[in-house]
Amino acid sequence: MATVLSGIQPSGQLHLGNWAGAIRQFIDLQQQHDLFIFVASYHALTTLRGEELRANTRQVVVDYLAFGLDPQRCHLYLQQDVPEVSELAWILSCVCPKHLMDKAVSFKDKVERGLSASVGLYTYPILQAADILIVDADLVPVGKDQVQHIEITRDLAQKFNYHTDSECFKLPAYRLAEHAQVLPGIDGEKMSKSYGNTIDPFMDEKPLRKRIMKIVTDGTPQEEPKDPETCTVYKIFTGIVGSQDPRSQDLAARYRDGGLGYGHAKQALFELIMEVFAEPRQRRKALLANPNEVDAALASGAAAARERASQVMDRVRKAAGLR
Amino acid sequence: MATVLSGIQPSGQLHLGNWAGAIRQFIDLQQQHDLFIFVASYHALTTLRGEELRANTRQVVVDYLAFGLDPQRCHLYLQQDVPEVSELAWILSCVCPKHLMDKAVSFKDKVERGLSASVGLYTYPILQAADILIVDADLVPVGKDQVQHIEITRDLAQKFNYHTDSECFKLPAYRLAEHAQVLPGIDGEKMSKSYGNTIDPFMDEKPLRKRIMKIVTDGTPQEEPKDPETCTVYKIFTGIVGSQDPRSQDLAARYRDGGLGYGHAKQALFELIMEVFAEPRQRRKALLANPNEVDAALASGAAAARERASQVMDRVRKAAGLR
Repeated sequence: MATVLSGIQPSGQLHLGNWAGAIRQFIDLQQQHDLFIFVASYHALTTLRGEELRANTRQVVVDYLAFGLDPQRCHLYLQQDVPEVSELAWILSCVCPKHLMDKAVSFKDKVERGLSASVGLYTYPILQAADILIVDADLVPVGKDQVQHIEITRDLAQKFNYHTDSECFKLPAYRLAEHAQVLPGIDGEKMSKSYGNTIDPFMDEKPLRKRIMKIVTDGTPQEEPKDPETCTVYKIFTGIVGSQDPRSQDLAARYRDGGLGYGHAKQALFELIMEVFAEPRQRRKALLANPNEVDAALASGAAAARERASQVMDRVRKAAGLR
Repeated sequence: MATVLSGIQPSGQLHLGNWAGAIRQFIDLQQQHDLFIFVASYHALTTLRGEELRANTRQVVVDYLAFGLDPQRCHLYLQQDVPEVSELAWILSCVCPKHLMDKAVSFKDKVERGLSASVGLYTYPILQAADILIVDADLVPVGKDQVQHIEITRDLAQKFNYHTDSECFKLPAYRLAEHAQVLPGIDGEKMSKSYGNTIDPFMDEKPLRKRIMKIVTDGTPQEEPKDPETCTVYKIFTGIVGSQDPRSQDLAARYRDGGLGYGHAKQALFELIMEVFAEPRQRRKALLANPNEVDAALASGAAAARERASQVMDRVRKAAGLR
């Protein structure tokens, strides 16, 4: 069974956009792969720390478990619980030519966006390579902006294998996440925490409905036929269940027939969310009421990741001459 | 009791120059301080790896113990046996502005000397800061070229304390090693492995004597008076026991009186080395015959260092939000 790895940012409470863009994929992946998912707490140190980091880390774990990551089927762990990864990052940094980091686009991007240029930010593709190599990952699902990082990972793995005349590392492949859905937010722009336009499916019923009612629509009167394809409400609806779903097709027909007000469409979206996320909402309540369950999930994920990491690090230390 | 830390390079077999320049100091320091000495195997990865690193690491440990580092009085350990140091290095790298590394002179120097510019070489002052901070060192004896690294260490410690509103780190002081003796090699240049001019006090008696007889001297005939201060043989002699030692004063008088051939002076140096290093030579034989003793020394040093490191890392992880 192929090992698949993915990291998630401890960005605090998750929203529908995260679910559509990534989480949903993981929930599929865990059915047929040996899936390792880690919360990138070391990486997050480049922008967060202290109580905020701790709280955000906890929050994403709870949300992922609520959405349906199953600790029986995947290994969910915190990066900090496999500290060997920082040792491997150091070892890789010694075979990483500096010009490889100078070329990494993520650093330039972030500095341009005004993040302070810390060494952590500069070298984080090396830590990311370590994250991947330390669990012997076969496959890493990535967005387009992450392809370069997988190439760097392969490059460092090859350099280490070459310099130590070993086969320590397997070269991971990547898979572009084609089905990752970009969901619009309530203002029609890409749903993103930084735009303040998110819908949080874990909200209480009343504020959730209120939030959905705020989705920006045009001024077409209720009685007129409407084009569903240009409407944010419909886009979010189909982003959740797909346009082939009978519920989507029914809603589209009502748009085109006329007589459907946007308030009705929003009510339909609200009901859909309550239906699709009924189980996650229940699960989340149960998890918040029972923090031990969350701890247990993390402990079992960390144990699996550390076991894998210790096998890999045994080979690496031997080859490097550290044992 | 103040904690003093020093790192040593796993540069393989040691020579008289290493002893005079550093080891002798450590042997003094262990009398009155809580002394941590580590073999910088992670750092060495920037230039060495595999069997060479492993063998060199072992060799310096054996030599240090032979010279008189006493596992009952100091903590001698391998950097790789306190892997938490790489975790701390990552955490510090996230508060380290990139321009601080761009300014570090050691990197520029090494690149100018033709070493490949790896990221490990570029960031190693951060790992060095972690080495120091992770044992809560009060004092680090340094050569002049290392002063900047201690300043970087203090800087990173302050930044972390500030950003996490904590007092995690103590700011280490440095002490310039004033008494560090620079010994000439057999060609009169500074004794250094890279010049191939070293004298190894652990050599067998015959090759050791032969090596000493090769020290370059001028052509002054035996019967003429000579100036001891300009003679490499005499400089090495006083480098070992000091110019105030009666044996040095006696030898200087014989130089000045005339009638002393350089062969006699070399014989005197040979006898001095055999006398001063009689105990280290014996101890080294015993250690080579009994590798378990070396392992035990390293295990006890590592246990002490890890205990200290785990206290420090508890504070650091808590402050960083990693726990």
